[in-house]
Amino acid sequence: MTYASSGVDIDKKDAFTESLSSMLRKTHTPRVIDNPGGFAGLFRLDYKKGLFSRNYKDPVLVACADGVGTKVKLASELGIFDTVGIDLVAMNVNDLIVQGAEPLFFLDYIATPEVDTKLLNDLVKGMAEGCRKSGCALLGGETANMPDVYAKGDFDLAGFCVGVVELAKLKTPTRVKAGDIVLGLSSDGIHSNGYSLVRKVVKEAGLDLQKVYPELNPAPRRKPRGKKQIRPRTLGEVLLTPTRLYADPIVKLQRQYRVKNVISGMAHITGSGIGGNLCRALPTDLDAVIDLNSWERPPIFGFLQEHGGVSEEEMYRVFNLGIGYCVIVRPKFAESIAEHLTKLGERVFKIGVIAKGKGEVRIG
Amino acid sequence: MTYASSGVDIDKKDAFTESLSSMLRKTHTPRVIDNPGGFAGLFRLDYKKGLFSRNYKDPVLVACADGVGTKVKLASELGIFDTVGIDLVAMNVNDLIVQGAEPLFFLDYIATPEVDTKLLNDLVKGMAEGCRKSGCALLGGETANMPDVYAKGDFDLAGFCVGVVELAKLKTPTRVKAGDIVLGLSSDGIHSNGYSLVRKVVKEAGLDLQKVYPELNPAPRRKPRGKKQIRPRTLGEVLLTPTRLYADPIVKLQRQYRVKNVISGMAHITGSGIGGNLCRALPTDLDAVIDLNSWERPPIFGFLQEHGGVSEEEMYRVFNLGIGYCVIVRPKFAESIAEHLTKLGERVFKIGVIAKGKGEVRIG
Repeated sequence: MTYASSGVDIDKKDAFTESLSSMLRKTHTPRVIDNPGGFAGLFRLDYKKGLFSRNYKDPVLVACADGVGTKVKLASELGIFDTVGIDLVAMNVNDLIVQGAEPLFFLDYIATPEVDTKLLNDLVKGMAEGCRKSGCALLGGETANMPDVYAKGDFDLAGFCVGVVELAKLKTPTRVKAGDIVLGLSSDGIHSNGYSLVRKVVKEAGLDLQKVYPELNPAPRRKPRGKKQIRPRTLGEVLLTPTRLYADPIVKLQRQYRVKNVISGMAHITGSGIGGNLCRALPTDLDAVIDLNSWERPPIFGFLQEHGGVSEEEMYRVFNLGIGYCVIVRPKFAESIAEHLTKLGERVFKIGVIAKGKGEVRIG
Repeated sequence: MTYASSGVDIDKKDAFTESLSSMLRKTHTPRVIDNPGGFAGLFRLDYKKGLFSRNYKDPVLVACADGVGTKVKLASELGIFDTVGIDLVAMNVNDLIVQGAEPLFFLDYIATPEVDTKLLNDLVKGMAEGCRKSGCALLGGETANMPDVYAKGDFDLAGFCVGVVELAKLKTPTRVKAGDIVLGLSSDGIHSNGYSLVRKVVKEAGLDLQKVYPELNPAPRRKPRGKKQIRPRTLGEVLLTPTRLYADPIVKLQRQYRVKNVISGMAHITGSGIGGNLCRALPTDLDAVIDLNSWERPPIFGFLQEHGGVSEEEMYRVFNLGIGYCVIVRPKFAESIAEHLTKLGERVFKIGVIAKGKGEVRIG
């Protein structure tokens, strides 16, 4: 009896791991120390002098772990694997930057029933893209073959991200004050939460993932420049739209306002929606009063709500409804920060205000 | 339609996440910054003064990700869940210390079909124990419910660990010299690799996981002190023995020999055995010449080999065969380091020597 006969092919896996390194290396900054064949990834926190010096006086490491839930199942069903890697990075990096941190590096765990090089390649390609766009090094990871746990075609993903923030700049709820403004940054759709419900709606309402629904493909706000045509997207493609990466604009924003303390808090809107996430940025004596009509809701939310007969309360409790990230700012700077974020490519809405309360999110 | 009806119960999950925090907090050192409800875990790298100052001049962060493979499947089959959490920590921490790092913190990803509080509680209990024994903070993690990916009773685990090492003390293959001695530290059995093969042998040879096999319960080397009785262990219990945690002795050893550069390299023996792992510590012009008869092989390996008809080559290629961790040391200090590690609770064998070659492990 051999290990290969039990479904695990060490040689095939080793050969593939080798081929991944070039994708990883493209995300590596000078702070990554090359460690081929090593037992762990190496990241130099700081250079004492020179171009790459960051000069942390009292560095706080910030770390989080997340997956993309049953969005992996949708990817399996559609056979599209190059987007969920971006989701995985986004789910982690967007959490990390909430604390004021700059992302440093990312590691992944991929579990599949067998070594499927096309699948693994597409997954890691997405992760590398997400990392590159977030200024984050893809430092390493683990690929597990578990033929008895995962059914053919299934897989799972977990991601881990580490960043750093100077202790004095760490975002904590105590910074938020009454009168602060809540800016909402547009999401790119469902992102990576609520996919068990999404898939149930698709199934029970008999929706077709391969079909182009006109209501999901509204006319663009602006006519595309030149001859570029926007191809209408199928329901499946709309649902697999990657989670928006907020690291680049948020890190840049914080560099811009380095001296003035104008950003009081932030929140990444994930499972349990705006209500369940924005409250995590609040002290116990303040509420966020949110106007649900203050932004444009992407058509996919109304589409699912209607076809699934989902109540408005449940929609609000499960989905981001079009706001993927919140930035709480001093009122005096709200306008200029919104403008700055718009220049950086974000769609920004003034969605609420901070008022006396008990650490809750109110729909006002 | 609601989210709960699709198999995901946010309230139940939130309540449980809350109850985990006390287990996590027991692993927290003063360097952990409490961040209840936060989006990420916070770890202060250094204190500039006082008791907890570490004074890193040029800190290199060391990070790795790993799972425990299909050992989770064996745990499911036996309904024993408090040991694989230790495995998860060990698989990561043991990789990390190879680079000379001290472990700082650990994060986990647990994926289950549904919120099973007994299962989750036992898993996290094991992780907390592994972290505590490794001087590592359990900083956070993610619990995912994915009813469509994982079958009832199944689950998966991924772990992620970060440590730090002073740049000048980073272990790299260039430190290893001809004439160095390879010390082997005893494993606690199979550890967490090769379980697809293990389970195939168990199944095809018709072995009984609930049975006490006398050949797996040899008389103890030393009579247990006092009235303490050693209860014979079933095959299942022997196979679920947690992976040995080497962080505590290895970190202590390095503190002891801080000034003298006596440890040239290390290796954690995981999947692909001594041959596949020890070579990762070698420069391209040196071999490790290993004497397979220089240590005592735990009975579980011979037991599986015999019942499964597995060749000696395949055994060597898949399993650790009784050596879980290797320390390559200067010959002059081999004796004193072996003694020191023995005092710290390890069983140490001189298993080989470094000689001119091409970066390979030879059976001599």
